[in-house]
Amino acid sequence: MTSSASDLEVDGGLLLARLRQLSAIGTDPRGGVTRLAYSAEDVDARDTVADWMAAAGLQVWVDEATNLFGRLPGRDPHAGAVLTGSHLDSVSRAGALDGPAGVIAGLATAQALRDAGAALRHDLVVVAFGNEEGTRGTPGMVGSKAIAGLLTPEDLARPGDGGVTLADRLRGAGGDPERISRAAWSPDRVAAFVEMHIEQGPVLEAEDARIGVVSSITGQVGVTASITGAANHAGTTPMTRRRDAAVAAAHLVLTVESLARDGHVRVATTGILGLVPGARNVIPGEAVLGIDIRDGDVGRMAAALELLGRQATEVAARTGTTIRLTVGPVQSPVATDCRLAGHIVDAAEGLSARWCELTSGAGHDAQVMAALAPVAMVFVPSVNGVSHSPHEDTDPEDLVLGANVLLRALVAADLELP
Amino acid sequence: MTSSASDLEVDGGLLLARLRQLSAIGTDPRGGVTRLAYSAEDVDARDTVADWMAAAGLQVWVDEATNLFGRLPGRDPHAGAVLTGSHLDSVSRAGALDGPAGVIAGLATAQALRDAGAALRHDLVVVAFGNEEGTRGTPGMVGSKAIAGLLTPEDLARPGDGGVTLADRLRGAGGDPERISRAAWSPDRVAAFVEMHIEQGPVLEAEDARIGVVSSITGQVGVTASITGAANHAGTTPMTRRRDAAVAAAHLVLTVESLARDGHVRVATTGILGLVPGARNVIPGEAVLGIDIRDGDVGRMAAALELLGRQATEVAARTGTTIRLTVGPVQSPVATDCRLAGHIVDAAEGLSARWCELTSGAGHDAQVMAALAPVAMVFVPSVNGVSHSPHEDTDPEDLVLGANVLLRALVAADLELP
Repeated sequence: MTSSASDLEVDGGLLLARLRQLSAIGTDPRGGVTRLAYSAEDVDARDTVADWMAAAGLQVWVDEATNLFGRLPGRDPHAGAVLTGSHLDSVSRAGALDGPAGVIAGLATAQALRDAGAALRHDLVVVAFGNEEGTRGTPGMVGSKAIAGLLTPEDLARPGDGGVTLADRLRGAGGDPERISRAAWSPDRVAAFVEMHIEQGPVLEAEDARIGVVSSITGQVGVTASITGAANHAGTTPMTRRRDAAVAAAHLVLTVESLARDGHVRVATTGILGLVPGARNVIPGEAVLGIDIRDGDVGRMAAALELLGRQATEVAARTGTTIRLTVGPVQSPVATDCRLAGHIVDAAEGLSARWCELTSGAGHDAQVMAALAPVAMVFVPSVNGVSHSPHEDTDPEDLVLGANVLLRALVAADLELP
Repeated sequence: MTSSASDLEVDGGLLLARLRQLSAIGTDPRGGVTRLAYSAEDVDARDTVADWMAAAGLQVWVDEATNLFGRLPGRDPHAGAVLTGSHLDSVSRAGALDGPAGVIAGLATAQALRDAGAALRHDLVVVAFGNEEGTRGTPGMVGSKAIAGLLTPEDLARPGDGGVTLADRLRGAGGDPERISRAAWSPDRVAAFVEMHIEQGPVLEAEDARIGVVSSITGQVGVTASITGAANHAGTTPMTRRRDAAVAAAHLVLTVESLARDGHVRVATTGILGLVPGARNVIPGEAVLGIDIRDGDVGRMAAALELLGRQATEVAARTGTTIRLTVGPVQSPVATDCRLAGHIVDAAEGLSARWCELTSGAGHDAQVMAALAPVAMVFVPSVNGVSHSPHEDTDPEDLVLGANVLLRALVAADLELP
């Protein structure tokens, strides 16, 4: 290539205009953006970005898993591809940036290279992964799992909300679940994956940094606690004769919190708590809790689960209830590639941007792509650390800066990747 | 009258057969009986009992509040009436006895007197109160409140479930909300009210007693706690920056429990707990708790509410949330009449039945009727203390015994009441 990285710059105005335009696809009347994976809005956003990719001169295609790709061919046909991108789907009443920022930044890097008449040695492939969020009872990160060959027939056949299977959802959005294996890339075709994303947390803001260099992506495990006590009359049942599922649930919520407060894991949350029958004058006979535990170390997560099990047994004994814990699949933590991370640091410093290293507390497609190739992530700050909310926001200058850091890091990585 | 109390006996077989027959009106396919106030099933049960009353030779009428009455005229036209009875409506998926046992036992006492060619000095009026349970967003004890002149225009106009007002519900079941004031009795027309009811608690069984002599009916107050924290990402928000409404709710549930465990009130229960948004990977930003506090002493309830308020403030401070407590109307405790209670004791001893004195932890129409006249209650044991459940049960012999105790107590009271 002829241009040096420091000559190149993304078109910041275009990047911000495109993000605004995307945010209008799936505007939720209750506020924010609702663009659930495989919905008409999701397909509309994909088609819109596909048009932009084509207009930028990229080779565009959609695979069997509804992943959208735009390729800027590299100079060396034998080199693997460098992928960059994120996702376009959202949770319900989300912001406009979780996902799209990384897709549009990726597109901006390819467009900057092409507009400069430059090309990398590797193919540069901008990707918008299908279904990162896993809404409507589907698993998350479906597109990246298909690319990594990790999507199972069970994933495709399992009924989600309304009894609709993932296969049906894919089919309805232009996917081809019967040929999903064709969506898999072999590792030798992928040189690296670099994803820009909003932080979705408060660390960068607290550190007064504009660029986050992700050192690892958190491990995660979901636990469902089912508590069985005895429903009974709230007026006539003496306190000493109660088997109150709500009291047991309260102890368990505090136990979960203490797992993290006491340093056994990084964060632990009870986001779901349902009581049965749920009437003011009836002692609850059943409770169901949805628990989320995250840490960067699989061993610490396993030890915390063991501790939770022991403490649940104590709570059950103390409250006269039975507690059954169902542990979901453990999402292993993923370390990013330190050389790729180093290029992000160099890029940030080259642009005089204050940066800091941090762990991603949220899951990302990058952790799935790590099965194929070295990965890295660039974070830009979230105002007040808010995400998955209509109040999600990032300073426009930080979004443009993030895209320029991504561009410089990709160019630098291209020079040394095999 | 010619018969002495010890000659009289209810027709136990008929009493049990009628309870069985009533239990078939509103059989719930999910188990138990669902006969919500003002439903077709409720009206059907009322019509059925009205037929039985008429066949027993009673003077039958239904008032503007859908209360059903059957009168056995007394010998002294200047004496007030002695009322006995309970209600026919039920909660959802209830048993067959909460309410009907007292109505059918009352009918059995009138029938026993009439079959013996006997009459009391007072009119004996068997009553089936309309809407004791207060389902579908209606207030409870509507019929007895109308009799006591305590039903307000606000009660009638307030929308319940589906926006349907109590007035509309009454109208749909043959009531006349515009003329509801005609349902009120003046105190000089009522000499006493005695209600038989299942205990709905475990005390009699634990005391190995077959008859409960109620010394007081519990006071009660409902409290709604609304907690506001901050919804945020469960993976990216550090523990130290959380304002977790679920954690605050858990502390509050244990605070409520401790109000009773530490002896400030007799019982305290959190029967409702809802989290918003209620997703596993989102820190709950809001929680709503439905709390029920009961005690026999208004002063203790007030002190407990004050303590709850102070502790809620502490919980809010500790968790970074705000907690708003909304205290509902306080149902004052009611003491039963000791002379009427003495007649119940005498009747139990005359029938060689082990009895014990106890507080009613549940609310009953008797506590409303106490505004008009001295009241008393006879309890029969609940198997395992279970009520408001398809598993509600009472030994048939105890039901018949309870009716005979009621009969003897009414006859004895008749002799000394003015």
